[in-house]
Amino acid sequence: MAMHSHCERWGQVPKQVDHQARRRRITDALLRITSARGLEAVSLRDVAAEAGVSMGQVQHYFRTKDQMLAFAVRHQHKRITERIQQHLAAAPGPRPARVVLRAMLVAMLPMDDQGRAEANIWLAFLARATVKASFAAPLRAAYPQILTALAEQLRRAQGDGELPASCDPQQEAGILFALVQGLLGPVLLGHYPPETALAIVDHHLDRLFTEPRAA
Amino acid sequence: MAMHSHCERWGQVPKQVDHQARRRRITDALLRITSARGLEAVSLRDVAAEAGVSMGQVQHYFRTKDQMLAFAVRHQHKRITERIQQHLAAAPGPRPARVVLRAMLVAMLPMDDQGRAEANIWLAFLARATVKASFAAPLRAAYPQILTALAEQLRRAQGDGELPASCDPQQEAGILFALVQGLLGPVLLGHYPPETALAIVDHHLDRLFTEPRAA
Repeated sequence: MAMHSHCERWGQVPKQVDHQARRRRITDALLRITSARGLEAVSLRDVAAEAGVSMGQVQHYFRTKDQMLAFAVRHQHKRITERIQQHLAAAPGPRPARVVLRAMLVAMLPMDDQGRAEANIWLAFLARATVKASFAAPLRAAYPQILTALAEQLRRAQGDGELPASCDPQQEAGILFALVQGLLGPVLLGHYPPETALAIVDHHLDRLFTEPRAA
Repeated sequence: MAMHSHCERWGQVPKQVDHQARRRRITDALLRITSARGLEAVSLRDVAAEAGVSMGQVQHYFRTKDQMLAFAVRHQHKRITERIQQHLAAAPGPRPARVVLRAMLVAMLPMDDQGRAEANIWLAFLARATVKASFAAPLRAAYPQILTALAEQLRRAQGDGELPASCDPQQEAGILFALVQGLLGPVLLGHYPPETALAIVDHHLDRLFTEPRAA
């Protein structure tokens, strides 16, 4: 937040709004409500109340509920990326492709309350996207990004001799992403504890990374 | 539909209602609407109109929208089972475990319009189940059934020497189910054509069934 020096001189802080922070605050409120009550229960009014701002302020950023939801999904994508970076920063030193890959997969699984809230909104969005084109766009944009990032690590693993050259990174990325996506429902509904879901992913990674190196 | 002989004698057919057929007709109408417009757009009134029956008739079978949806999900489960049996019946002769397993996985993928409609309602139901306990029950009941059926075929494959004894059928079933579940979104949103999703599943099956037999 930039401040004007002539105001500081008078000991006054100009009424400057940190738009990014407010937008984020509104989005966080939306995520909390969606996670607790579902997407169909959310109104701009509820979000304003939860965020502690006026309806007018919410409408300044989002004209419609759909706009707000699209922003929330993109925002989530950013959060997942941040979580991956945090996870990797916590374990410094060389990072084999498999470690990075696993961090990406773990970040997409609902391992804690925040992960659950994100998975809830992702599934709500996905369900709506199948019948409403405007909802499909952010997901269609996210799919190739996620798949490319996963394939990149698989290719790096090939370069390091951890994966056989015969392995198809794009196809293996498709399997890994679908696997994690398909575990969202069973974890959210309590069929698998998060640890079991993670064990399933690890089992698959074990197989992938111990395939015979020579064809 | 049973008919009374004394009525037939007079050339009259008693006004007997085939409850199962009507229930099914109402459910089909629900599936069509949900697939086209989403779950939140569905009302008992819409379903009555689509099915060509009165509101009272719909309410005779389903007191609430939730009851109707729960029935639809259970009904779908039955349809998928029927589709697997049809698929297997079309290819008579010995049925190796892998063939049965693949038929089960294909039946769960949105390969045609009916499959898409089913996947739509499944995802809509799943999204709602994460925030409403009454919706979670039919899914929680379906998970172990599907996983057990998949694990059963994997165990049979082990018995036939097609899969190594070291392979854990329950864990591999978990991977197969999650994989297919996770492909629903990308197929429904057009990221993958159904054939690409199927190729991903086949690639995974290829690896599973060509693992070294001896540890």
